[in-house]
Amino acid sequence: MTWASIDLNADLGEGFGRWRLTDDERLLSVVTSANVACGFHAGDAATMRRVCAWAVERGVRIGAQVSYRDLAGFGRRSMDVPSDELTAEIAYQIGALEVFAKAAGARVAYVKPHGALYNRVVHDAEQAEAVVEGVKLTGERLPLLGLPGSRLLDLAEKAGLPVITEAFADRAYTPEGTLVPRDQEGAVITDAAAVVERSVSMARFGVVTSRCGRSVNVRARSLCLHGDTPGAVDLALRVRSQLEAAGVRVEAFV
Amino acid sequence: MTWASIDLNADLGEGFGRWRLTDDERLLSVVTSANVACGFHAGDAATMRRVCAWAVERGVRIGAQVSYRDLAGFGRRSMDVPSDELTAEIAYQIGALEVFAKAAGARVAYVKPHGALYNRVVHDAEQAEAVVEGVKLTGERLPLLGLPGSRLLDLAEKAGLPVITEAFADRAYTPEGTLVPRDQEGAVITDAAAVVERSVSMARFGVVTSRCGRSVNVRARSLCLHGDTPGAVDLALRVRSQLEAAGVRVEAFV
Amino acid sequence: MTWASIDLNADLGEGFGRWRLTDDERLLSVVTSANVACGFHAGDAATMRRVCAWAVERGVRIGAQVSYRDLAGFGRRSMDVPSDELTAEIAYQIGALEVFAKAAGARVAYVKPHGALYNRVVHDAEQAEAVVEGVKLTGERLPLLGLPGSRLLDLAEKAGLPVITEAFADRAYTPEGTLVPRDQEGAVITDAAAVVERSVSMARFGVVTSRCGRSVNVRARSLCLHGDTPGAVDLALRVRSQLEAAGVRVEAFV
Amino acid sequence: MTWASIDLNADLGEGFGRWRLTDDERLLSVVTSANVACGFHAGDAATMRRVCAWAVERGVRIGAQVSYRDLAGFGRRSMDVPSDELTAEIAYQIGALEVFAKAAGARVAYVKPHGALYNRVVHDAEQAEAVVEGVKLTGERLPLLGLPGSRLLDLAEKAGLPVITEAFADRAYTPEGTLVPRDQEGAVITDAAAVVERSVSMARFGVVTSRCGRSVNVRARSLCLHGDTPGAVDLALRVRSQLEAAGVRVEAFV
Repeated sequence: MTWASIDLNADLGEGFGRWRLTDDERLLSVVTSANVACGFHAGDAATMRRVCAWAVERGVRIGAQVSYRDLAGFGRRSMDVPSDELTAEIAYQIGALEVFAKAAGARVAYVKPHGALYNRVVHDAEQAEAVVEGVKLTGERLPLLGLPGSRLLDLAEKAGLPVITEAFADRAYTPEGTLVPRDQEGAVITDAAAVVERSVSMARFGVVTSRCGRSVNVRARSLCLHGDTPGAVDLALRVRSQLEAAGVRVEAFV
Repeated sequence: MTWASIDLNADLGEGFGRWRLTDDERLLSVVTSANVACGFHAGDAATMRRVCAWAVERGVRIGAQVSYRDLAGFGRRSMDVPSDELTAEIAYQIGALEVFAKAAGARVAYVKPHGALYNRVVHDAEQAEAVVEGVKLTGERLPLLGLPGSRLLDLAEKAGLPVITEAFADRAYTPEGTLVPRDQEGAVITDAAAVVERSVSMARFGVVTSRCGRSVNVRARSLCLHGDTPGAVDLALRVRSQLEAAGVRVEAFV
Repeated sequence: MTWASIDLNADLGEGFGRWRLTDDERLLSVVTSANVACGFHAGDAATMRRVCAWAVERGVRIGAQVSYRDLAGFGRRSMDVPSDELTAEIAYQIGALEVFAKAAGARVAYVKPHGALYNRVVHDAEQAEAVVEGVKLTGERLPLLGLPGSRLLDLAEKAGLPVITEAFADRAYTPEGTLVPRDQEGAVITDAAAVVERSVSMARFGVVTSRCGRSVNVRARSLCLHGDTPGAVDLALRVRSQLEAAGVRVEAFV
Repeated sequence: MTWASIDLNADLGEGFGRWRLTDDERLLSVVTSANVACGFHAGDAATMRRVCAWAVERGVRIGAQVSYRDLAGFGRRSMDVPSDELTAEIAYQIGALEVFAKAAGARVAYVKPHGALYNRVVHDAEQAEAVVEGVKLTGERLPLLGLPGSRLLDLAEKAGLPVITEAFADRAYTPEGTLVPRDQEGAVITDAAAVVERSVSMARFGVVTSRCGRSVNVRARSLCLHGDTPGAVDLALRVRSQLEAAGVRVEAFV
């Protein structure tokens, strides 16, 4: 009996020109939501077009993975961007991706900040507000995909935008249900079996074992998978098949 | 009695970040069509947003001024860009601008290639076709603004897209009605009175005196004005007032 | 009788491709030290070459104005750049400028961080250390030009590099001798006569009137002038002539 | 008995930020000359620093792999860059690399154009001259590495610069001794044994079999190997070991 459902999202199209990072075609056979890079941290126009076409062929939802303008740093360096600039840059990226989503017969269905911007809008209200304003500028009520409890999701809700919470099966959680910072030991879970087990636990019961051994609630509508390392896609495939075997319906959020 | 009409277009928003080039606010009081830079040769996102808002306030039509990706060269260096890349880059730029046009209450109304791309698609069928494909990718039947007789306009028409021809009041013409290349003496007309006189002649009678002294037909639906030099906006204002004094209706093409 | 000497420095070559910002030729007739942009926040290669040639013709010292890699933000947005990247980027910029300094018959004589990096290394020890490491990587004992009391100058001295302190005649000072932050009222002094008077006072007596009316010591070997606004060069010229009239020797630091 | 010697060169450091392309460490155990990307088509500053350090550790010569400024196109798109801009950009890249070469205890030992620029200066005298001027601007008599018979090498020699000719073991040659263009069938030789055999033949006898089956002279001081595909480094290792087995001394040109 199917009695739970989960969305699987991953970053795609994160090459640039000659460079490739993600195995986009294989990843698109796993995920239900594709966070497509929009050219600011990665993602040239031809790649964006191709990934959108593939996503639509496979019934995968297209999201705008928006970032600071920082190709050299892959969007991983926090930047003090003034609000009006950040708002305009977010809208610019969504608009650019929309043209390829439409050409493929779909629409941009959601927005997810990337890298340093993702981390910053967890707590920085000014930049979070700027991102929300950028989404509103498009005139579409696009959902924001992000961390439960983040300023971004709070402000998006206040602005009347839908929000989608996500969890990470390969990250350790504190007893309070927040992520263990990456620079702490054990922050990233590399054991494949553990990642699979945690995925199923999160999707079915909304709980995960914290690093202290206690169960914590991690209610999330989407699980974030990674595809930028050699074994990552294989692990993602395994997560998906185990979720399905456990009776979890893998499907995009509405 | 009004018995002719002409569109006036100019390049706008051609700054980038800290740098400004065009006096956008003043130019928008002169032109009826604004060729807005889309970020590839100039035009940061915040500037694009601002120029679109100003244009709509003044009833000026918004066009996508698409370019090679070349900030360092301001889009003035011809580049051998493969067709699929060029097509995607054109669509990307139009999509990015569309978000700001829509936010301001309008739509992107036409497309005009910039700089080296403009010159190249006069004769290069492959790149002209790639530009047309990029416009078609947007799913909108956007008019192409360009040189009469250019490969770009030929191929756009064959693809079922509207075309808008333009003329230059400050450029010398050959007896065959083509532009005298910029590197030849007398190619650019700097005498303000002559520019004004030629504008009126082009708009009212569709003719201009070639460098050999003969009248040549230069039927164009739009006149291109420049705004990137100190006296340019003043001259543009003078052209507009003299056109109106001569009974020419200054209005955007439909 | 001449009984004091001061260096005058200003930012130069801060255009990029088609864009110009600073009136480099006029500024070079005022200053004794030219902070030349190295391509990361501004400064294309052809401009760097030209400015170096002009500087040498006029006997002006060439300094590397190093920055975060951020053309879109003109280097004014603080960035969390990892130390090893920042160190390498500083060295890269100095090396690139050195080739043009040498071609003109000189050498890069000092290093001054630009914009957000300048402000950040006042207090951020990690980035200040990364900048110092970048300078050391060049193998030259290049002086660092910066704010007295900044972490940058502290760490540079500890590393055995010469340091040059600078003051700002157009900025208000606190009674403690630090700059009034830009977002506070009265932080920037716009009255030309006041700027001239403060320049002379700083150069001759090493003191300036704080915003509370009290005299504070501002010992600086160099005064920073600005050249990126219309009246700025005129004001800079006036500062220089009044300094000379007051018996101050205007000359580059050794 | 050793009775011939050959230099082996390959492109290195061709990643950018998060992206990697070449297996730099392994390649450095094969080649005697490393063409290091300088930031214009690839090559961030931290990578340049690292590759220079590795090269010096392994006794590999460092060359500046200079390119058009085109990260999005990986320097593979021919560009009409004005001579003064191209000259300055070449010098800029060499200067930036020199700082890392020096920091590692070496010097930039030669210059090799990359991609579209490499192909263009085979026949385009204006750009070839601009490249030569850029090298001369450094004040060092740096050798140019390129195709025998190219305009680049002709003009470099006329300018008094040393030249180093190179050949390609994995490219087909015409009976006239020129490369078969890439878009023709059989232009690239993919059979590993054939590549090895041709390498030895070129190094020992200065001849190779043209696509018509005739022997042609291909006197070259250096062989260009590739390292940007999975099997490429293995093939390069095999070429080197077979050259040595055949009594060819593998060593950098002086």
